[in-house]
Amino acid sequence: MFATTPPAPYYAVIFTSLRTDNNDGYGDAATRMVELAAGQPGFLGVESARGVDGLGITVSYWASEEAIAHWKRDAEHTLARERGRKDWYAAYETRVAKVERAYSFRKADAA
Amino acid sequence: MFATTPPAPYYAVIFTSLRTDNNDGYGDAATRMVELAAGQPGFLGVESARGVDGLGITVSYWASEEAIAHWKRDAEHTLARERGRKDWYAAYETRVAKVERAYSFRKADAA
Repeated sequence: MFATTPPAPYYAVIFTSLRTDNNDGYGDAATRMVELAAGQPGFLGVESARGVDGLGITVSYWASEEAIAHWKRDAEHTLARERGRKDWYAAYETRVAKVERAYSFRKADAA
Repeated sequence: MFATTPPAPYYAVIFTSLRTDNNDGYGDAATRMVELAAGQPGFLGVESARGVDGLGITVSYWASEEAIAHWKRDAEHTLARERGRKDWYAAYETRVAKVERAYSFRKADAA
């Protein structure tokens, strides 16, 4: 669901992907990576969606560039990335961006 | 599908949303907004996914802050935003971010 992020500035890693049809171990690894990321210093939250056309977008939010670099070096995450390139992803784009401003809307009569 | 973006830096607008169950006019407006955005100066591309839990993520890419401001002021876009808040969206977050670096992966044996 929505990530609860602090006032800008902070960082976003936009990960856009197309999967292969190899699902072996993917679901467990995806769950584990979210769990592992959430325990990293500077992790702020994550939002994820995969559409019927197969395109997936996962945006993780981080307090700093250092937090992103630290997460990238994590040993278990590095192994998962290697497995991802070998088995799970046909293609992906990773974009690192600095969030400069943000706006929220909540419908008045929404729960 | 994937947006084909130039070398960084450029800008991303990360739009994360939950829809209401009011679909009246939504599909046509969503299609029209992508078409209209694509004709704006500084538009670089768009990636979009909505997952089974209802969370949608649309990331549009822009050459500059000015291009984003120009698109935000577009009259037809402004009307669609107002309609969106009234009818189509229960909640959303809009984050404007500067993409500082990007990495691509394409599987060697992928089409």
